[in-house]
Amino acid sequence: MSNTKIKAAIAGASGYTGSELARLLMQHPDVEISMITSETHEGKPFSALHPQFFGRLDMPLVSAGEVAGSDVDVIFLALPHGVSMEFAEKWAGHRAPLIDFSGDFRLGSPKTYAQWYKKEHTFAAGLETAVYGLPEIHAAAIRNARLVANPGCYPTASILALAPLVAKDLIITDTIIIDAKSGLTGAGISANATTHFSNVNDNFKAYGVTSHRHTIEIEEQCAHLCGNAVTVQFTPHLLPVDRGILATVYARPRSGIGQAEIEKLYRNYYSDQPFVRIRDENPSLKDVRGSNFCDIKPIVDTRTNRVIVLSAIDNLVKGAAGQAVQNMNIMFGRPQETGLMQIPLQP
Amino acid sequence: MSNTKIKAAIAGASGYTGSELARLLMQHPDVEISMITSETHEGKPFSALHPQFFGRLDMPLVSAGEVAGSDVDVIFLALPHGVSMEFAEKWAGHRAPLIDFSGDFRLGSPKTYAQWYKKEHTFAAGLETAVYGLPEIHAAAIRNARLVANPGCYPTASILALAPLVAKDLIITDTIIIDAKSGLTGAGISANATTHFSNVNDNFKAYGVTSHRHTIEIEEQCAHLCGNAVTVQFTPHLLPVDRGILATVYARPRSGIGQAEIEKLYRNYYSDQPFVRIRDENPSLKDVRGSNFCDIKPIVDTRTNRVIVLSAIDNLVKGAAGQAVQNMNIMFGRPQETGLMQIPLQP
Amino acid sequence: MSNTKIKAAIAGASGYTGSELARLLMQHPDVEISMITSETHEGKPFSALHPQFFGRLDMPLVSAGEVAGSDVDVIFLALPHGVSMEFAEKWAGHRAPLIDFSGDFRLGSPKTYAQWYKKEHTFAAGLETAVYGLPEIHAAAIRNARLVANPGCYPTASILALAPLVAKDLIITDTIIIDAKSGLTGAGISANATTHFSNVNDNFKAYGVTSHRHTIEIEEQCAHLCGNAVTVQFTPHLLPVDRGILATVYARPRSGIGQAEIEKLYRNYYSDQPFVRIRDENPSLKDVRGSNFCDIKPIVDTRTNRVIVLSAIDNLVKGAAGQAVQNMNIMFGRPQETGLMQIPLQP
Amino acid sequence: MSNTKIKAAIAGASGYTGSELARLLMQHPDVEISMITSETHEGKPFSALHPQFFGRLDMPLVSAGEVAGSDVDVIFLALPHGVSMEFAEKWAGHRAPLIDFSGDFRLGSPKTYAQWYKKEHTFAAGLETAVYGLPEIHAAAIRNARLVANPGCYPTASILALAPLVAKDLIITDTIIIDAKSGLTGAGISANATTHFSNVNDNFKAYGVTSHRHTIEIEEQCAHLCGNAVTVQFTPHLLPVDRGILATVYARPRSGIGQAEIEKLYRNYYSDQPFVRIRDENPSLKDVRGSNFCDIKPIVDTRTNRVIVLSAIDNLVKGAAGQAVQNMNIMFGRPQETGLMQIPLQP
Repeated sequence: MSNTKIKAAIAGASGYTGSELARLLMQHPDVEISMITSETHEGKPFSALHPQFFGRLDMPLVSAGEVAGSDVDVIFLALPHGVSMEFAEKWAGHRAPLIDFSGDFRLGSPKTYAQWYKKEHTFAAGLETAVYGLPEIHAAAIRNARLVANPGCYPTASILALAPLVAKDLIITDTIIIDAKSGLTGAGISANATTHFSNVNDNFKAYGVTSHRHTIEIEEQCAHLCGNAVTVQFTPHLLPVDRGILATVYARPRSGIGQAEIEKLYRNYYSDQPFVRIRDENPSLKDVRGSNFCDIKPIVDTRTNRVIVLSAIDNLVKGAAGQAVQNMNIMFGRPQETGLMQIPLQP
Repeated sequence: MSNTKIKAAIAGASGYTGSELARLLMQHPDVEISMITSETHEGKPFSALHPQFFGRLDMPLVSAGEVAGSDVDVIFLALPHGVSMEFAEKWAGHRAPLIDFSGDFRLGSPKTYAQWYKKEHTFAAGLETAVYGLPEIHAAAIRNARLVANPGCYPTASILALAPLVAKDLIITDTIIIDAKSGLTGAGISANATTHFSNVNDNFKAYGVTSHRHTIEIEEQCAHLCGNAVTVQFTPHLLPVDRGILATVYARPRSGIGQAEIEKLYRNYYSDQPFVRIRDENPSLKDVRGSNFCDIKPIVDTRTNRVIVLSAIDNLVKGAAGQAVQNMNIMFGRPQETGLMQIPLQP
Repeated sequence: MSNTKIKAAIAGASGYTGSELARLLMQHPDVEISMITSETHEGKPFSALHPQFFGRLDMPLVSAGEVAGSDVDVIFLALPHGVSMEFAEKWAGHRAPLIDFSGDFRLGSPKTYAQWYKKEHTFAAGLETAVYGLPEIHAAAIRNARLVANPGCYPTASILALAPLVAKDLIITDTIIIDAKSGLTGAGISANATTHFSNVNDNFKAYGVTSHRHTIEIEEQCAHLCGNAVTVQFTPHLLPVDRGILATVYARPRSGIGQAEIEKLYRNYYSDQPFVRIRDENPSLKDVRGSNFCDIKPIVDTRTNRVIVLSAIDNLVKGAAGQAVQNMNIMFGRPQETGLMQIPLQP
Repeated sequence: MSNTKIKAAIAGASGYTGSELARLLMQHPDVEISMITSETHEGKPFSALHPQFFGRLDMPLVSAGEVAGSDVDVIFLALPHGVSMEFAEKWAGHRAPLIDFSGDFRLGSPKTYAQWYKKEHTFAAGLETAVYGLPEIHAAAIRNARLVANPGCYPTASILALAPLVAKDLIITDTIIIDAKSGLTGAGISANATTHFSNVNDNFKAYGVTSHRHTIEIEEQCAHLCGNAVTVQFTPHLLPVDRGILATVYARPRSGIGQAEIEKLYRNYYSDQPFVRIRDENPSLKDVRGSNFCDIKPIVDTRTNRVIVLSAIDNLVKGAAGQAVQNMNIMFGRPQETGLMQIPLQP
């Protein structure tokens, strides 16, 4: 019945995660989008910023100030880090839970945050109570969360690749190397030298080597899984594609493990998870494009005594907006997959 | 209720239009896919051919021979031309109507077919009764059709661009030039020099100049609209993109027409059509990608005394599988847009 | 001998045409690059802006003020229009001739310039004496020019496609339609929404319909060729490729012309031109990439009574820097092809 | 003087390495291409296969049988492995030295060859005397070689990235992981599912994990450098670009090493090598595209106690045809860089 729909507010209309969230919520049977905010574009129709919505979602953008007094049921914050914690603090008293896309509430302490994000955290109480929104690992906590920190895109692909091995203490964690490759939307909608077509097209390079902020997020979640501090090597690269992350993860097993054994481990670990697909073939970006799936293939190399795990997601869906909807489903007592089971767009 | 679902058969599993049709039918609330046929891959799961369906549509492929005795409600033929007319003839007596993706039933006569397709038509009775499945023009006939000839991708974009002007007799038809550009999926899934990545990527060229088969399809439909024979110049080009067609259409108006007037003409002509969007901005491929929309912008150039119409579709959706579902909706008394209103995947 | 080398100054280091010119001059046997100017990046090595030159062209950028007192033999202006005419005026008294990449000196009168470029021309004397630098048509005048207006990229492809037909008065000029498609480098190195990767990749659209500035440039040069005013329809589109322009040109012949006849016409017209290649196959962008070639294929469509000419260039080479070097060769008495005969980079 | 030109035969005209070699030899001041062979296309002009050469290299292709009796000075074999060893044996008695592009002569023994290439080696004597053609390491042996095994593309990027560390025994070799990404031309010119545009465009995936043949080639060359057996982890991936390889190489240092120290090591090691550029910025594919450069950046991560080396080449130039020309230069007493110093094509 339409009067039981979940009324959603999207704070932050201009970026890719905001528009992707709107796309997914439009096809969710139990949600209506109540308001979308933008300070820069207030008053314009949403479709003026994202013309693919023309004729389908032309509602005018409103100021973020409208959110506090509204009767929305859930608030998605698709805002830059730093900005997000300001609004999260403002809206902490609203009856609606918050699902935050930024990096502001993902880490364990204000100190760690300051160290990796190079700015002070201004809402420590929020950071303390926030739940890390990776449903495959934290579903129980997400269910009752008031503030969900939606994971980063690289961490989603990386942690799902590592979780079975780390949780069962099967690898030597300081041998973990994550060589990750991302589509350009991960760099955002802003126009700059990094996002200029001719710097990306037919090109490829590494960036943020040794220092990317998602490193600590992966390390903290791995530590949560195994109970010990974990250090990982994380190297991101920029692909000439719009969407998708492929993480190639390497580690040394503590003791011998066979191919059949590792496959069984992964299938069991994720047996109840609708979005993790353990593949026989190598995952590819297009096999998950536009979808909330995470395709994983674990491989044992007996010659080198290593495990290699390949993991693919759409950074805008499972790495952002889709995962946020998955979290919302859990928080509102829906089956996780509600509104999220579309087939990937391929080719 | 699930027992009222339309049971669909898809004949021809290996190509892009077959897999795209499966994607769309999977998200249609009133359809279940009963069988998918393939002679080459009989027995394999559908997802073995199209791994994006892994875990979602793993049903085994069956021989086309299974269709005749089945209780399916609708049969989609996603087969090559020439092959399609054979099967259409075989299944002509089945109670289920046929929706054919090939070029076999789109033209007015076996003679014209032989002339442009360089082969004899073997099922003239089918050709005679087939309805051209462009719902924006032939909805009434489609409703009761037993055999729908789903239009070509270029004709869909071109005819929708031209229809208001041609139907109202506002242009001199022998001045019509259609300069069209298509994504690579229009060339099919077969591996050959044309579809080799390094011949397409960062490249662009024309093909089929003066002789492409879609020319006659456009001419016949324009003739239907205005009541006179029409000759058009049609030039296709190959874009380094997966999906999408942009047609840039030129014509000389019979008499002066203004920008406001042409826009009003288009908005009125398509006012009841859920999938045609008259745009203020120039259409782009990504604004319709993965969707059944056709975005159109008509422009008057008073300096040169010409009208220019820009028209964009996704060749696999509005140009093939989506249009087929739209036709099915009409034939089964559903609202045209049922299961087809997803937001385009952008970026 | 090195003391006979032509000493070249490049004014404007930051854009694509500046770097492409440097690339071509580096492989020219008779040229040495004496100075490259940039106000924004003065003092930085050239390779800091264009890292492909690292270790090969690290000379520090100097202020444009250095040009006037220098002993350079030729000055290339790779500057934006508007800026270019200021510097051209300043350097008009230098003994070195000027080759200008901007649109400032291509048109017939200050009035026309003001009309299409929306700004007053401030160096009318320059405009009056400038020679339009399309060597296939104006070689004699270029030889003695003090100021060469290097043609626009679209006009180069379009005029070379049209010249034989227009010069021989074989087509009805008001039926000329140029449907042109360009790579992204034509939009420049600036980061903005137009050049953002995710707006271009896997996408395609028209822009500047009815109003692009290159229209008048093409019209004036066609008028020069046939002796009468010419109006053309010119529609540019943006391709998801780095380099290249393909122009698809349509026109109605004055009287019947055959395929053999038109091919002979083109081969004869360009028989002495080293860079125009009359092709049997349809030209493609990659067949000319990185080279100074213009590949052309003329086609007669007897069914529609039209001629169609396909024309492909690399917009940064024959459409800019390569043509400038070709002009320089002519001005300095070298064979046109000196330093310019590299094979296109394909794939 | 033209009568001192090196007369070159290219055996194998149809692939990318053959055409790239022709491109490079065309701009070499001291070489003339005497013959190009092809069994499949005998009699056709070379430019019919590679139209970018139209008007520049239209010589008819001849049978490989023509090579034996010819007076060519050098024979390049751009043939598939397996085929190459047959012809190398046939031409072993020709006075001209052979430069082979295949994998047939790169490994240490027929046994290792059989193990990784899954076929018997039929010309063991050739394998024994062949010199591994990586000039930065084996220049002295190349100088007098009768048969040069031109290195694989991945090994070129990988070995140059590792050589300074391995040669100086600074890393624990069994911690070496090479995560490599290649453009599509590495997969060859054959049309198949792997090279179909829509499987590659906007996509990315790993292949040949744990089993790629280039693994053993890297291991043997590293063993040569350090004097001990070396095992490496090598994982190739397929990029949606035409050209280029980026290798991201990880290893654990034997003892502490600083950033300044590692940079100095690399600069010293390659101080006399014209094609290796030690970069301050991260290398990118386009910064080397079309050129013979190998751009390298070594990085120390003190947090994780690892070294990371980024290495970029054009797989068709430094990874194939360019390196072959470099070898030829050495064998014929020319400076290594003769004819090879063109600026990369960027963008």
